[in-house]
Amino acid sequence: MRILITGAAGFLGSHLSDHLLADGHEVIGMDNFVTGSPDNIAHLAGSENFSFYKRDVSNYIFVPGKVDAILHFASPASPNPQSKSGFFNLPIQTMKAGALGTHNCLGLARVQNAKFLLASTSEIYGDPEVHPQVETYAGNVDPTGTRAVYDEAKRFAESLTMAYHRFHNVNTSIVRIFNTYGPRMDLEDGRAIPNLLKQALLGQPLTVYGDGQQTRSFCFVDDLVNGIVKLLYSEEHFPVNIGNPVEMSMLHFAETINKVTGNTAGIVFEDARSARDPQRRQPDITRAHDILNWEPKIDLEEGVRRTIPFFKEKLGLV
Amino acid sequence: MRILITGAAGFLGSHLSDHLLADGHEVIGMDNFVTGSPDNIAHLAGSENFSFYKRDVSNYIFVPGKVDAILHFASPASPNPQSKSGFFNLPIQTMKAGALGTHNCLGLARVQNAKFLLASTSEIYGDPEVHPQVETYAGNVDPTGTRAVYDEAKRFAESLTMAYHRFHNVNTSIVRIFNTYGPRMDLEDGRAIPNLLKQALLGQPLTVYGDGQQTRSFCFVDDLVNGIVKLLYSEEHFPVNIGNPVEMSMLHFAETINKVTGNTAGIVFEDARSARDPQRRQPDITRAHDILNWEPKIDLEEGVRRTIPFFKEKLGLV
Repeated sequence: MRILITGAAGFLGSHLSDHLLADGHEVIGMDNFVTGSPDNIAHLAGSENFSFYKRDVSNYIFVPGKVDAILHFASPASPNPQSKSGFFNLPIQTMKAGALGTHNCLGLARVQNAKFLLASTSEIYGDPEVHPQVETYAGNVDPTGTRAVYDEAKRFAESLTMAYHRFHNVNTSIVRIFNTYGPRMDLEDGRAIPNLLKQALLGQPLTVYGDGQQTRSFCFVDDLVNGIVKLLYSEEHFPVNIGNPVEMSMLHFAETINKVTGNTAGIVFEDARSARDPQRRQPDITRAHDILNWEPKIDLEEGVRRTIPFFKEKLGLV
Repeated sequence: MRILITGAAGFLGSHLSDHLLADGHEVIGMDNFVTGSPDNIAHLAGSENFSFYKRDVSNYIFVPGKVDAILHFASPASPNPQSKSGFFNLPIQTMKAGALGTHNCLGLARVQNAKFLLASTSEIYGDPEVHPQVETYAGNVDPTGTRAVYDEAKRFAESLTMAYHRFHNVNTSIVRIFNTYGPRMDLEDGRAIPNLLKQALLGQPLTVYGDGQQTRSFCFVDDLVNGIVKLLYSEEHFPVNIGNPVEMSMLHFAETINKVTGNTAGIVFEDARSARDPQRRQPDITRAHDILNWEPKIDLEEGVRRTIPFFKEKLGLV
């Protein structure tokens, strides 16, 4: 297939590009480098099956030639208020990527009779009152809240995707992506894994907030990409959660990271914050298992081990 | 003020135009007549303070001269699956009006330093699990459901409005409109009041589904418009419910309509349907009362009395 990936220079988009190229497909990458980085696709520069367009998908998406599939991964996604490329600091661009970007992709999919796959997110569940989250759960999102620029953009994108499927018969799929980590992730993402792994590699004590008993679930990027590709090849139109359902306490996360990195500086406990990492989210992956025969295979120790070289390089430790 | 009203030829937009012209403002109407009708604004043709542009606000909204306020009321809104201009049959246009239309309005408001008022809806609460609905309730909307084309478009519009307020300091307001009736409403709207009033005026027995004990709240259009205009003049940025909180059983509605119209054909009971009128929605109007000093003043009997002449004309009974 000849596959267009928006956000191809991002964390997930670049891994998807790698995977689909390895599967023998031709990949057309598109990115405006607002949140993605040329570094993430530099290794593909010599590949004859990879081409690239620097472009804002909210404005213009047309590419010459036949397109067989479009994967829409372009969007700011970091919830870190300090990140210049996070959605708090790019609220309107984030909403445009979800609305105009998705609309442009669906229009192209329609005229090209191409498959369309939307990267949605566990954020559409908001601050969930149901655990773990099943795909039929309607979520708990305040449309006027500051996070809504991301949450409602993705909810809108899902609705528009279903409308094109129902009304124009476009072959669409929707993946709801849960917390993911691995090489090429943004070190300033602001979430637990990059924060803790940075500290560990710098030989600092790991900061755990509160008593460390709050839980998180994280999926290694290779597992996630395997699930997305299975969904791409499927005929499933309703959303499918892809993520790692193994829930661990933050304390256990920190201990595991210290163990894998050999960091002996220990752990310090600080007062619980309210602004960041507020939600407990855990995917129910029954549908992914039943429909796609997918489940994550890489445990936290192995995932952290595979992530370390990238972090060391970014931190100038090699 | 010089006020741009999108959807000015619609049920609510045309009443708003009347009210604001009577208040001494200049009104610029805009409509593409997909759901609105030239009949609704025909009486304004001679007014020197009213001008009109036939235009799709999802495409282009610029008008010459200074604009002091923009009221975005353009959108399909009928939930009747049989209505050609309802949102079920215009899913993508509905989503465009909510996303692109709102974006165009906010962009114009920003460059003109104009007030922006968004017509949102009780539909953003979806199938509510909280009664009555307060503005802080996050709602119960499945983004992949068939109604989501309207619900998520309006949720997105609210989020984008708040983003422009927070990020670009645009002076914005959001009204969440509950069920409304009155002259110029769509007789094929598919909801209870037009259905029952049509039957009554034609001397037919009124159809009540189930045992008639299910409840509804309806607001007369003059009350609604008064509330919206008060919100327009306010500095309130968070959403405000405007609607009539008086809940009545469908049986009581039907009996009132028969009484006011003098219809002696009685009432027939039919099996409850599932597809239409599924939700019970009732506004909590505490915020409207406290912030705007607003409450509805016209009861059902009076409202129906004022609506009858329009229905008679449309039904060819005069």
